[in-house]
Amino acid sequence: MKCKKCGGKAVINMPQHNMGLCKDDFLQWLPEQMQKHIKKQKMFTPEEKILVAVSGGKDSLALWDMLNILGYQADGLYIALGIDEGISYSSESQRLTEKFANARGLNLHVVNMTADYGIDLPTLAKETRRGRDKPCSSCGLVKRHEMNRIARDFGYDVLATGHNLDDEAATLFSNTLQWNGDYLIRQHPVLAERDGLARKVKPLFRFYEKEMAAYTLLRGIEYIYDECPFAEGSTSTQYKELLNQLEHEHPGTKIHFFTKFLSAKKKGLFAEPTTKIVPELHICPKCGQPTSAHEICTFCRMMDRVNQ
Amino acid sequence: MKCKKCGGKAVINMPQHNMGLCKDDFLQWLPEQMQKHIKKQKMFTPEEKILVAVSGGKDSLALWDMLNILGYQADGLYIALGIDEGISYSSESQRLTEKFANARGLNLHVVNMTADYGIDLPTLAKETRRGRDKPCSSCGLVKRHEMNRIARDFGYDVLATGHNLDDEAATLFSNTLQWNGDYLIRQHPVLAERDGLARKVKPLFRFYEKEMAAYTLLRGIEYIYDECPFAEGSTSTQYKELLNQLEHEHPGTKIHFFTKFLSAKKKGLFAEPTTKIVPELHICPKCGQPTSAHEICTFCRMMDRVNQ
Repeated sequence: MKCKKCGGKAVINMPQHNMGLCKDDFLQWLPEQMQKHIKKQKMFTPEEKILVAVSGGKDSLALWDMLNILGYQADGLYIALGIDEGISYSSESQRLTEKFANARGLNLHVVNMTADYGIDLPTLAKETRRGRDKPCSSCGLVKRHEMNRIARDFGYDVLATGHNLDDEAATLFSNTLQWNGDYLIRQHPVLAERDGLARKVKPLFRFYEKEMAAYTLLRGIEYIYDECPFAEGSTSTQYKELLNQLEHEHPGTKIHFFTKFLSAKKKGLFAEPTTKIVPELHICPKCGQPTSAHEICTFCRMMDRVNQ
Repeated sequence: MKCKKCGGKAVINMPQHNMGLCKDDFLQWLPEQMQKHIKKQKMFTPEEKILVAVSGGKDSLALWDMLNILGYQADGLYIALGIDEGISYSSESQRLTEKFANARGLNLHVVNMTADYGIDLPTLAKETRRGRDKPCSSCGLVKRHEMNRIARDFGYDVLATGHNLDDEAATLFSNTLQWNGDYLIRQHPVLAERDGLARKVKPLFRFYEKEMAAYTLLRGIEYIYDECPFAEGSTSTQYKELLNQLEHEHPGTKIHFFTKFLSAKKKGLFAEPTTKIVPELHICPKCGQPTSAHEICTFCRMMDRVNQ
């Protein structure tokens, strides 16, 4: 297969775009595309301060790398969750994240659950009803809380996460299977800032997981190859596999599924909700963060329970 | 497994309802459920005349059987398409349909494409652009035209088809993958009558294909087991297989996917369309049927083309 731009040897085939590209052209095309959609979706400007949530995986490291290449002011945030039973998942991902940041002279915030809160995530999850089966729900709660906290404390305008198209399509698939109206109406690569919560953006929302893997490989970025051990067998992994089956039969299924959803929504497919999707926020008296929970926020309530 | 009603030996397990039933209870439960949803969805009353589109397959024969048991005035319509290349698909399905009707003294209309229009469906499809790859699109057009014609000529109030839950879920899946707003807004087990077109209803919309197969088997109804030879490898077959994979992992996926869609729609998830989904209808000057096409209807135009 030939590179569509220069006619050289293609290293990646992207049937959904009916295009193959050589290494140099792919490494130029991907950040250019991202830049185009950052502007189109009004995600952020070069004047704004960005906090990138970095896990040590390919997507978030590649995102940070591209933001850096494009000249944005992007600092990283790594949350050390202490998932080190069996394999050293957290230690290894932290090592790779710090190595990436140091090699490029980038600024990295590190939150350490054990040091900052006296408990690691697997223990926390075990001790709460929320995480009896799987700690994923507690993990999401902790990560959201800490991302919002660091963004607020250090004055970041926007929080960027490395969700790629496969992630977004699987989430949309789940929301659609259940016709979860509130989630369908909210799902978008840009969530506006509100009441002290930073804007949230997903600049990789149009890129296939395969493209992100190719990017990190071709850029020589070391990343943690293993999935989080708790993700194994999750529903979202099943949905990704199903969507990959469809993609295999009909190239472009995933990107059309997601982008047609966005454009149908923009054209007014969904009715304006009659009640507020997210209720009024107030300030949690313990941590000072905006919350929709009754009085104390869910994060602080969970921490109180395990510290009793 | 035990029958949930009588404690006897269950012949069918329906994990989506967390229920197994014995033969007698299943044969009572299925028509009762159908009756319940015919009323709930206001499909038709015992005073109305129903035309059932019968293909000779399990779903449409079971539908006709149950309508008969429930005391509705339901006549059948069989459309002989002449799909007899290789296997005698049409001849055999016609034979089984007539056998079913005769054994029960039911009234059956038969439309024969070759006798009535001088051409069979496979030939028609080959000679039109519409059917170059697959005749399914021409077939749908012919069937809709003939169902509407017989319903109008013989004064039926309502047209019933044997689409089951697997069919409806696969259609919904397809409409959702493409976020086809017009189709999503229109998809419903009841389409109201309008401008000379009979009401269209799908009384089996809550029943799994597996349940319909069990019903015909337990009732001793002979039906054509083969799928239409042209359906093989179709997208809708692929979608059904995917949904079956999900159903296997999470029993109830199919019925929840479809019924949650209906209830989200009822609760106003979708905005009222700003333009008419189905444009104004006028009468085709050739066949006298309502059509949204420019002047002559699509069916007559297709027939004109092949008869030139």
